[in-house]
Amino acid sequence: MPRSLNIAVIPGDGIGKEVVAQGLKVLTSVLPQDVKLETTEYDLGAQRWHRTGETLPEAELEALKGHDAILLGAIGDPSVPSGVLERGLLLKLRFAFDHYVNLRPSKLFPNTATPLAGRPEIDFVVVREGTEGPYTGNGGSLRTGTPAEVATEVSLNTAYGVERVVRDAYERANARPRKKLTLVHKNNVLVYAGHLWKNIFDRVGQEYPEVTTDYLHVDAATIFFVTQPERFDVIVTDNLFGDILTDLAAAVTGGIGLAASGNINPTGAFPSMFEPVHGSAPDIAGTGKADPTATILSVALLLRHLGFDAEAARIEEAVSADLAERDGSFRTTDEIGDALAVRVAD
Amino acid sequence: MPRSLNIAVIPGDGIGKEVVAQGLKVLTSVLPQDVKLETTEYDLGAQRWHRTGETLPEAELEALKGHDAILLGAIGDPSVPSGVLERGLLLKLRFAFDHYVNLRPSKLFPNTATPLAGRPEIDFVVVREGTEGPYTGNGGSLRTGTPAEVATEVSLNTAYGVERVVRDAYERANARPRKKLTLVHKNNVLVYAGHLWKNIFDRVGQEYPEVTTDYLHVDAATIFFVTQPERFDVIVTDNLFGDILTDLAAAVTGGIGLAASGNINPTGAFPSMFEPVHGSAPDIAGTGKADPTATILSVALLLRHLGFDAEAARIEEAVSADLAERDGSFRTTDEIGDALAVRVAD
Ligand SMILES: CC(C)[C@H](C(=O)O)[C@@H](O)C(=O)O
Ligand SMILES: CC(C)[C@H](C(=O)O)[C@@H](O)C(=O)O
Repeated sequence: MPRSLNIAVIPGDGIGKEVVAQGLKVLTSVLPQDVKLETTEYDLGAQRWHRTGETLPEAELEALKGHDAILLGAIGDPSVPSGVLERGLLLKLRFAFDHYVNLRPSKLFPNTATPLAGRPEIDFVVVREGTEGPYTGNGGSLRTGTPAEVATEVSLNTAYGVERVVRDAYERANARPRKKLTLVHKNNVLVYAGHLWKNIFDRVGQEYPEVTTDYLHVDAATIFFVTQPERFDVIVTDNLFGDILTDLAAAVTGGIGLAASGNINPTGAFPSMFEPVHGSAPDIAGTGKADPTATILSVALLLRHLGFDAEAARIEEAVSADLAERDGSFRTTDEIGDALAVRVAD
Repeated sequence: MPRSLNIAVIPGDGIGKEVVAQGLKVLTSVLPQDVKLETTEYDLGAQRWHRTGETLPEAELEALKGHDAILLGAIGDPSVPSGVLERGLLLKLRFAFDHYVNLRPSKLFPNTATPLAGRPEIDFVVVREGTEGPYTGNGGSLRTGTPAEVATEVSLNTAYGVERVVRDAYERANARPRKKLTLVHKNNVLVYAGHLWKNIFDRVGQEYPEVTTDYLHVDAATIFFVTQPERFDVIVTDNLFGDILTDLAAAVTGGIGLAASGNINPTGAFPSMFEPVHGSAPDIAGTGKADPTATILSVALLLRHLGFDAEAARIEEAVSADLAERDGSFRTTDEIGDALAVRVAD
């Protein structure tokens, strides 16, 4: 276990600030006294953009590299044109720091509401590719705004990029009791990218004889997410399909208020970044209604990534216990954070 | 009401043949005696491909043009490499006949099973673009099969293509009691295509002041499909997002066995094509387990498209009544078809 922790904090917009505060509260509480925690806040997001026109200047990108990990709240505000902060800040970080494993666990905790009848057992993790696919910003628009406009979006997929994330997913599947890995794509239509994914998935699979494999088209996968989510263990998929599937996964496992994620660079060349799957929810910002649990669970992913396994587990157990005792009465963002900070206290 | 009906039938693969037989049975039964029904079967699909290597020869494409409409069962078999029949037959038809409106209604009928707790009211229709987006087959693979492979998929979007489908969706929304239209895209990441869609959606909307509009990112839309499906009335979206969302919609409204679709060319320049949303389900082919209801509801869409409004309504009422009386005991494909044929009989 490391003796120090140097975290960059990007609270971002809307409820981002509120939930990150709770994440840090729990982080401070869970760490052993002798681990030196340093945090540096970075003022990035909608306000910064309005003030200076900047999304992520080079100097800050450079500075961020010096941290062990990044904790991010949420990015985005209706006052900023759609895409500016997403592409200029959030995705820029994921790409610059080569976060090729976007890890999104989904678990239906006891005593949490699911829209699904019959409460199936749900405990799977989506390994979403984070640096390729339709997210690369390749594309353009010709004769913009005229009746003759043509707009393209190019999905880029490389053997290099697919193999490394597929391998990571096999490793994760192999380490879990059920050892099952499902590839989700749409290789009956997106034949070039789809066949690249499928071929690599099959080839790498030969090195993991104990892992059971399965392939689903993305459309069919959404059906199973609601009719038979218990069939999934580890899922590996493309950047865009992963985006769609993990919101759906969050919805069926008690909502976006509980969904954590890690943007991971497994090589350690750059800091990994941890963030709730939810957005900045400007409609409830400042009301104390935001559930910080997703951020707190993201802190657990951060800790595990940096080798603090026991602390990560303590947070997850605390969340599980806290959820089990929820009786439906309203608690503020701060109250939930406080309760969890107490539970994890060293 | 026309006095004759000249239908091309493509049973296709697996359960396609079985469900199409029931669709034709109901079609024959519902039509007034004095309407002359002619059907021509086209042998296309996996068997044909194995026999001759052909998916859709020019001569047959030509011949299909001579019909009032096409009824299709399902295409696809595990013995055929993924993509061959999808691209070479199904999508070829949709593109050659400029089926730019892929119409997919979703309704939760009484007494049908939904995986959602609390049985929300669901009655919406997805207008999926059918001739553009990532479905155009633009893309390629370089250094295929090597560690240096690069594969691309290009999503093509034109103002021409987007405006016509958006306009169609506004017309449909305007004709429904709730008059609500939701655009689903991902314009915070796919900024070029997304902004094209959003700009046209906003501009055309000015011509429909009574229609309430809404925009959702595709990931957020999947959440609402399971937590709040009653919020949707008409949805307009891109080809790939529409593919994904309509399978999810089918799942929450009683399953893929009930989901109908029409690939429509609203100009009438080419025949429109009607098909169940489900696939060929080779695992249950020949067992009598396939539910022909989706195909029979597709026949209703076909009839309405050709001006047989009363007959279409009769089929929909018959399905509703049949579902209301289902007691969970097993009925074969043929038995369900028979029961519906009796109910709609003129
Ligand atoms: C905000 C957006 C760019 C982002 C994405 O699409 O990846 C979000 O939806 C997510 O899932 O983290
Ligand atoms: C079979 C496949 C090509 C097709 C599609 O992706 O459009 C199917 O999933 C559908 O929804 O009709």
